Amino acid sequence: MGVGGFVRDETPTDEVNQREAVLESLTGTVRELIDATIRTTVDDDEVHRVRDDLDALVARLRTGQLPGPAGIRYNSELRSWNWGNAVMGAANAIAPPLNVVHGPSGCHADVVLGAAYEGPPGLVHGGVSAMLLDHIMGETASGMRRTTFTGTLTTRYRRGTPLGPLRFEAHIAGEERRKVFVAGTISDADGVTVEADGIFIQPAGTPTADG
Amino acid sequence: MGVGGFVRDETPTDEVNQREAVLESLTGTVRELIDATIRTTVDDDEVHRVRDDLDALVARLRTGQLPGPAGIRYNSELRSWNWGNAVMGAANAIAPPLNVVHGPSGCHADVVLGAAYEGPPGLVHGGVSAMLLDHIMGETASGMRRTTFTGTLTTRYRRGTPLGPLRFEAHIAGEERRKVFVAGTISDADGVTVEADGIFIQPAGTPTADG
Repeated sequence: MGVGGFVRDETPTDEVNQREAVLESLTGTVRELIDATIRTTVDDDEVHRVRDDLDALVARLRTGQLPGPAGIRYNSELRSWNWGNAVMGAANAIAPPLNVVHGPSGCHADVVLGAAYEGPPGLVHGGVSAMLLDHIMGETASGMRRTTFTGTLTTRYRRGTPLGPLRFEAHIAGEERRKVFVAGTISDADGVTVEADGIFIQPAGTPTADG
Repeated sequence: MGVGGFVRDETPTDEVNQREAVLESLTGTVRELIDATIRTTVDDDEVHRVRDDLDALVARLRTGQLPGPAGIRYNSELRSWNWGNAVMGAANAIAPPLNVVHGPSGCHADVVLGAAYEGPPGLVHGGVSAMLLDHIMGETASGMRRTTFTGTLTTRYRRGTPLGPLRFEAHIAGEERRKVFVAGTISDADGVTVEADGIFIQPAGTPTADG
């Protein structure tokens, strides 16, 4: 029924697109809830009442559910979907989400990070920076045409990254047998805040550029 | 009203503890909602109805709210709280949370990562691993007695980290003027899956071990 955890699912592509839009709509509101939970100043009794009402909504969603994590699915039209992905999943409210754009000389993603991604006051958590860089750099290495896994990721923090609008960029710096070397950055309006180098590995048994 | 984004807030410690417990209770249910949103198979109409009801709950929480991110607060009893922190914040549903235990020879944290932290099918997203390692290693460097920022973090992935119960560990490997060198690992029941080295920096103007 699939290869390496990838599940073949013959839902037609137009139905996949429709369901994705429905889940994205709910997930957008869940992101609002995450932000509102961090920032709310309503009194304790009202917080408890909201929690009780929220419990009921969770129960309604759980009347039918997958037995475990969402995994990655694909149909024979080669539409694939991984709605549970922690960084770009359409149904995962933890994901900002990071929508990676593939260009001729690399990838980029523009994203606005709010209160939910804070570490030091007013700044993006350093771990969040590493998480999002890992993702865009992995997508750059695979180029949506081959499978790669992160081998080593080195992240260097030049200065604090402010919450707000940010640009992530990544490009392939070199290739050597099964290794793909990728460089990436995070920038705010004043320039680069974090830079990273990664080595991504193509699993044995898959084709490489030099055979 | 504070130093470097840290806000002095003279809420008495017992009231801080009480509010933290109230917010933790709501946040636990928000985490359930994140999981249920990823895994739900209820029909589109019901998803839309849940979203509408959820919109109303968000509005109730937003009738009173902080103007921006939560930041870090402290009172004159030196109780500090950062409920919005992306990795361990009591009010942040993105945080698993990672509860770091400080021991004589280092730190550890036991955590169960579910569907919301998935990357490859059934496995923890490599970026999530880096995010959580950054946090525990930073806490190890600071030891809750000094301020440190991540300078460089290098994460090496030995094999896939399965979703489920995991142990994070970190210890100080050395110190040199303003640099604190920290080593960390993630392990499942079969051993280490990810290892990391970090250089954490004490800001100029703060005391160091060797002056």
